[in-house]
Amino acid sequence: MKHYFPNMGQIKYAGPNTDNQLAYRFYDPDKIVLGKTMAEHLRIAVCYWHTFCANGADPFGAATRNFSWQHDTPLKAAEQKLDAAFEFFIKLNVPFFTFHDRDLAPEGDNFAASVDNLKHMVDLTQNKIETTGIKLLWGTANCFSHPRYMAGAATNPDPEIFAYAAAQVKYAMEATKTLSGENYLIWGGREGYETLLNTNLKQELAQLERFLNLVVEHKHKIGFKGTLLLEPKPCEPTKHQYDFDCANVYAFLQKTGLEKEFKINIEANHATLAKHSFEHEIVYAITNDIFGSVDINRGDPQLGWDTDQFPNSVEEISCIIYNILQHDGFTTGGFNFDAKLRRQSVDLEDLFYAHIGGIDVLAKSLLVAADMLAENHLQDLVTNRYKNWQDKLGHEILTGHHSLDSLTDEIVTQAIEPTPVSGHQELYENIVNQYLWKDKN
Amino acid sequence: MKHYFPNMGQIKYAGPNTDNQLAYRFYDPDKIVLGKTMAEHLRIAVCYWHTFCANGADPFGAATRNFSWQHDTPLKAAEQKLDAAFEFFIKLNVPFFTFHDRDLAPEGDNFAASVDNLKHMVDLTQNKIETTGIKLLWGTANCFSHPRYMAGAATNPDPEIFAYAAAQVKYAMEATKTLSGENYLIWGGREGYETLLNTNLKQELAQLERFLNLVVEHKHKIGFKGTLLLEPKPCEPTKHQYDFDCANVYAFLQKTGLEKEFKINIEANHATLAKHSFEHEIVYAITNDIFGSVDINRGDPQLGWDTDQFPNSVEEISCIIYNILQHDGFTTGGFNFDAKLRRQSVDLEDLFYAHIGGIDVLAKSLLVAADMLAENHLQDLVTNRYKNWQDKLGHEILTGHHSLDSLTDEIVTQAIEPTPVSGHQELYENIVNQYLWKDKN
Amino acid sequence: MKHYFPNMGQIKYAGPNTDNQLAYRFYDPDKIVLGKTMAEHLRIAVCYWHTFCANGADPFGAATRNFSWQHDTPLKAAEQKLDAAFEFFIKLNVPFFTFHDRDLAPEGDNFAASVDNLKHMVDLTQNKIETTGIKLLWGTANCFSHPRYMAGAATNPDPEIFAYAAAQVKYAMEATKTLSGENYLIWGGREGYETLLNTNLKQELAQLERFLNLVVEHKHKIGFKGTLLLEPKPCEPTKHQYDFDCANVYAFLQKTGLEKEFKINIEANHATLAKHSFEHEIVYAITNDIFGSVDINRGDPQLGWDTDQFPNSVEEISCIIYNILQHDGFTTGGFNFDAKLRRQSVDLEDLFYAHIGGIDVLAKSLLVAADMLAENHLQDLVTNRYKNWQDKLGHEILTGHHSLDSLTDEIVTQAIEPTPVSGHQELYENIVNQYLWKDKN
Amino acid sequence: MKHYFPNMGQIKYAGPNTDNQLAYRFYDPDKIVLGKTMAEHLRIAVCYWHTFCANGADPFGAATRNFSWQHDTPLKAAEQKLDAAFEFFIKLNVPFFTFHDRDLAPEGDNFAASVDNLKHMVDLTQNKIETTGIKLLWGTANCFSHPRYMAGAATNPDPEIFAYAAAQVKYAMEATKTLSGENYLIWGGREGYETLLNTNLKQELAQLERFLNLVVEHKHKIGFKGTLLLEPKPCEPTKHQYDFDCANVYAFLQKTGLEKEFKINIEANHATLAKHSFEHEIVYAITNDIFGSVDINRGDPQLGWDTDQFPNSVEEISCIIYNILQHDGFTTGGFNFDAKLRRQSVDLEDLFYAHIGGIDVLAKSLLVAADMLAENHLQDLVTNRYKNWQDKLGHEILTGHHSLDSLTDEIVTQAIEPTPVSGHQELYENIVNQYLWKDKN
Repeated sequence: MKHYFPNMGQIKYAGPNTDNQLAYRFYDPDKIVLGKTMAEHLRIAVCYWHTFCANGADPFGAATRNFSWQHDTPLKAAEQKLDAAFEFFIKLNVPFFTFHDRDLAPEGDNFAASVDNLKHMVDLTQNKIETTGIKLLWGTANCFSHPRYMAGAATNPDPEIFAYAAAQVKYAMEATKTLSGENYLIWGGREGYETLLNTNLKQELAQLERFLNLVVEHKHKIGFKGTLLLEPKPCEPTKHQYDFDCANVYAFLQKTGLEKEFKINIEANHATLAKHSFEHEIVYAITNDIFGSVDINRGDPQLGWDTDQFPNSVEEISCIIYNILQHDGFTTGGFNFDAKLRRQSVDLEDLFYAHIGGIDVLAKSLLVAADMLAENHLQDLVTNRYKNWQDKLGHEILTGHHSLDSLTDEIVTQAIEPTPVSGHQELYENIVNQYLWKDKN
Repeated sequence: MKHYFPNMGQIKYAGPNTDNQLAYRFYDPDKIVLGKTMAEHLRIAVCYWHTFCANGADPFGAATRNFSWQHDTPLKAAEQKLDAAFEFFIKLNVPFFTFHDRDLAPEGDNFAASVDNLKHMVDLTQNKIETTGIKLLWGTANCFSHPRYMAGAATNPDPEIFAYAAAQVKYAMEATKTLSGENYLIWGGREGYETLLNTNLKQELAQLERFLNLVVEHKHKIGFKGTLLLEPKPCEPTKHQYDFDCANVYAFLQKTGLEKEFKINIEANHATLAKHSFEHEIVYAITNDIFGSVDINRGDPQLGWDTDQFPNSVEEISCIIYNILQHDGFTTGGFNFDAKLRRQSVDLEDLFYAHIGGIDVLAKSLLVAADMLAENHLQDLVTNRYKNWQDKLGHEILTGHHSLDSLTDEIVTQAIEPTPVSGHQELYENIVNQYLWKDKN
Repeated sequence: MKHYFPNMGQIKYAGPNTDNQLAYRFYDPDKIVLGKTMAEHLRIAVCYWHTFCANGADPFGAATRNFSWQHDTPLKAAEQKLDAAFEFFIKLNVPFFTFHDRDLAPEGDNFAASVDNLKHMVDLTQNKIETTGIKLLWGTANCFSHPRYMAGAATNPDPEIFAYAAAQVKYAMEATKTLSGENYLIWGGREGYETLLNTNLKQELAQLERFLNLVVEHKHKIGFKGTLLLEPKPCEPTKHQYDFDCANVYAFLQKTGLEKEFKINIEANHATLAKHSFEHEIVYAITNDIFGSVDINRGDPQLGWDTDQFPNSVEEISCIIYNILQHDGFTTGGFNFDAKLRRQSVDLEDLFYAHIGGIDVLAKSLLVAADMLAENHLQDLVTNRYKNWQDKLGHEILTGHHSLDSLTDEIVTQAIEPTPVSGHQELYENIVNQYLWKDKN
Repeated sequence: MKHYFPNMGQIKYAGPNTDNQLAYRFYDPDKIVLGKTMAEHLRIAVCYWHTFCANGADPFGAATRNFSWQHDTPLKAAEQKLDAAFEFFIKLNVPFFTFHDRDLAPEGDNFAASVDNLKHMVDLTQNKIETTGIKLLWGTANCFSHPRYMAGAATNPDPEIFAYAAAQVKYAMEATKTLSGENYLIWGGREGYETLLNTNLKQELAQLERFLNLVVEHKHKIGFKGTLLLEPKPCEPTKHQYDFDCANVYAFLQKTGLEKEFKINIEANHATLAKHSFEHEIVYAITNDIFGSVDINRGDPQLGWDTDQFPNSVEEISCIIYNILQHDGFTTGGFNFDAKLRRQSVDLEDLFYAHIGGIDVLAKSLLVAADMLAENHLQDLVTNRYKNWQDKLGHEILTGHHSLDSLTDEIVTQAIEPTPVSGHQELYENIVNQYLWKDKN
């Protein structure tokens, strides 16, 4: 078999102080942390689209990369891409990958041809999975790139386009099941509007509701056991996307009675585009029991679009993992690198540098978070802050034993004039830094 | 009785081409538009806080205004402010006003004293209402300015502060009922967090849920017939407010089973701070049947805080009113000017200029929107855009007669390859401009 | 000759109340306004790239348009595009157009072939200009789309790429001279950085300085009489562009002694991406005598990238034109529609709707601005606001007759305690609305 | 003498792994790093306004703090504040402080009284400085808080207000000289506009030019040897401030011929509000030789106002210090904590936690930056990236030996078609992380 990364060997753990830029400083997959291996905690996936399909084109410029698996006719190129991808997964030593149907197999001349292409590539992929042990974290259907979807897939003004998307999703779901995917994901990249002037919002949301129900029904019909995931994004490509943020998705799921059928896939850069911190979206989802999986990347705080950069902040990710670990970690989800090389990173090595850097950020952050959790210092402070809610008055309030009238009686008869208590934000922040920067992790 | 605006007369309608800056160019309250008077459509309210309490102070500077009703000892000043307010309402010829409890009556030395102050001022206000016919659009409680609420009211780590807020809200609700308020509003100005590090989100949301239930229970207990309103804002003063936008509120209401008990009060500047267009939040609320009322103002597109400027764009507000009219207009809600003078506008006349300008923007926008609605040009285009959903396939899909499998059959057996259709956004925008700029409205 | 817009006739002025969506409501090119024709005031240009080259592709989706002049082999397609473009200019009745070298003629297999392509197309274009009377507002070189420029053209780490760009600019400048262009423009689309980590800012700015000097020297050498223009943009495609905003450009021009050689081309959407109002950049440039030309479009206030939408706000553009008219209008500059169809606008008609709407916004805004200027109401208020600077103290200060000591003497000896005066912002805003919405313009 | 922090002892260095929250983990003032002590590198200053004057009030709420030196009548309170401040400086062991005139001494009933207050407090402060060895990094005049300055100080429409500000600045400069301040700073908090409609930009900038000249003239007249600093901020309190960012300031300084007289004081949160990274503004100023000093703090990426939080990111600050060290560090400048407690941090201890945390971030970042600089790994990569500019072609270009024509000859005769080279951004980022997270710093 041809090698697509002939100069690259297996990436191995070499410890924090190595000078080797093609080794892990922190990711040591079998190292036990809080009772599980690093690999089990992080459940790292490489994505197909950015890593193997993207070519560096942007709205102001042409492709800058032309890797050796990208030259051939579409289906041949797809076969070569598959070989390249699994060579990469193995050399990087990651347990999972993710794909859109159109990443794996090219669109054909018509629907039937596209289905044939997909089936062919799914067969080959199944074989790869069996021989390597690398697993599918999730599959999804690309119902946003083709011009037919320019005004949405499920929310299109044309029911034939809804039907076309439905058929495409059917095969993508079945491919995911065939490949033992642990989740199936929906990102509504064009489910939104460009202008309210030409949009019937009520109609479009009714269509979306029906579409999600079709997906749920099909899941149960075919016996797919994985989790269904929805991925919020506020905008881009559309001016407004219906799945703006976790709360928008949650409101919609509840209204349509689907809140038990879907979890959320949270992407860091989508959170910040929605004017939330990444941490906020994680905690919101956990609190509302809709947390599913994570697309790990970062945006640029000065730029207003999805830059999908590789994560590089241990300071930020430590708090993310700290929150996830408090919730007992992932079940079917994981950390998927929905991250792409900068346009100027045109070398094969850059694919390795980027993933190694991102994986080490996750690994180091896991170590910091585990430390914070083990000592419980922060959690004790928080518990103490709310301790009065365990007392009589707090307990009575939360258990429904009070009315506005009875609480007014409490205030008036006992002449209560409460004194505010320091929130100590700077102290909490210092404690996080204490864990980040102590001498040994 | 002392006059607080001695040099100002009654503001009257004088037509579009008047040079009089103290007259209405478009607001002609009794003019009939689409079967109702302008006054009935717009239900304009002046707010108490910005208009009579604010003094021009900002985080970088001291008060610039010191109007004649702001000099005296707190309770005396409150009485004078009431006289000034009603003189202003009458001269401006607006039908409604709004207030926080602490705008109307000062906080006393302790809770009981505050209650006494409020009762005294409610009595005086009730008399004003009876003699003038000016009505209360909504009342609310200020549970965010006093230091005791620095870490929230309902979501405070201290249950005594929850109880204090409960007692305060009880009296504010009862004052609103006494004054025949058409709505009672809750804005959770400090219900949020400064940092997730010191915050137990699940605990705080449980508290908020209980608090809102107390309000609902009390409403029914005292027989208040008005609408309960929640007002979203993404941040400011807190780093994150739980009622971030309409969707966040709607998700929370559904989770707690309260979605029938509350409507939303949408503020223009809050919408844009949440990275939505004002129009989006209006349409979202209408579509989900949670639209209640509007705080009308505008932000500055380059500034990241709530500037609460008076609205001045007929282009923007025409589309807002167009959407509201399509939904049959306000029921108990209205347009409340939650808008404040710029810090440098220190003259009494500036209060008039600002409100006259804002009211005329609403009135002119109503005329434009009514025109658009009367001719139905835009609505016909939209209906036509979705017309295929009335046909067989569309109807079958929406009525649940299809599965992913059956839709795939449709696509495959009929070899459907749909052609995308122009969205014509620029044409729709031109049509709006056609209505805005035609010679006569 | 083949017709590319066979169903479209000449677009004519039909007055504000026409229902014809393919007519001008306000643009009446020969109408005299303040002593000049509308056409002379507005100097409208259609751009080549968005209007004839773009195909609706975006980072999440493929091309949605495939107009009939876009099918053939590159050079044939370029010839057809030229025919289509001039047919469009004529039917729209606009006096100017603009282009990048690569819009007009395709890149060849090597530099010499690219030069040949350009020369061929320049010859054909020259003939079109002579036979139609349509003129070139400005030409420019695209030194940002080809992968060779991925790390900048003038600011590239490789001097050969600098040289390549220099050679490309030479031919683009000469083409502009041949076609009697009134300006030559430079937009530094990749002159910036993606990360400071790999960037030697001092080195790159020295390169940019030398490059701009080469351009100035060549201009004088070949006797090009037009204006050199620089176009600021804060970011996109790069993370940071050196020509961030007018002030960044002006600082650089002064440092390098080039402030007399270049004027600024201000784009509306670039201004807002730089966190300025469009109006701010216009007024800044005028005040500093570096105002040159305008790329007219609009962004979306909720989106963080260059949406390049057609302008549709008379409210906004009236103030822009008011400022430009106060400065005696354009000299060699004009309003260039650097605006593109939305991706879903796939019909030939959409090209017309979009330009007609944008042109009418300019025309109506010109009428409003002329009205404001004719009556001088606003300007008188502003003059009055600063009138004390005409008095003794103000005059002495500005003419250098005071020191901190002498001014302190004034304050102390005369016990001056100045009283602040109202800024009347709301009144000014009302006056603008008075002009916008009066019955006849 | 009364103690204002009776329960707090001297803050000492205790090493990275201490559990003591009232000790330094990294700041060890006398430790030698790259040939200088930490204290000499960092030149840390505590600011007077946030730390001793602020009370936790915000636009939505009243003061939450009332420290013991804030109770008395204004001048008495100022004396107590001075004692508290120096007790704090000593306990924290910082070498510098900064102030506005109105922080140190209250405004009196008239100008003369204000001068008397200032003189009285300067005398007391001079004594403190002499007895403690703590030094003044810079002084400044508050010409933005008093209502008289609501429309600007130097740029006010009223020349008497200009004169008033001039007199105030005279005394503030002289106080700074008396107290051996190492710099004198100007922040134009209200030098800008709220709306262009009522603003004569040309007039206001002429006033500002004259004002800055007065300051320069006075500096030389009184023989003040320190550096004059200007501090950019894009907005807040005004809608637009003239000193928007470093480039705006630099353009203005050059236009007025003052570019040798002023350096820039860069504030982290002001940089990010101007849509720059903090690092960008540092590098821009260094590159243009206008770097002076730093106001160290941080903003919140989701909030659009100046939150002035204490810095807590070693990841960010390491790169800042790395850039400053490459430029040989501060001369008269330093790191001034223009940072304030969160409103809920109401305890005296919070003042210590906040400053300790911020100082440790600077100290740890200094260690990381010194490491990066010592090994020169990053700098070597950058030098290598531009190495071709040392060769013949590059050298000829930069030394002015080429024209567009001669460069075209090079391209054509040698058939140059350059190949783009990887920018390796991810690798550079990994290397920074290598230094941040290696086992020992």
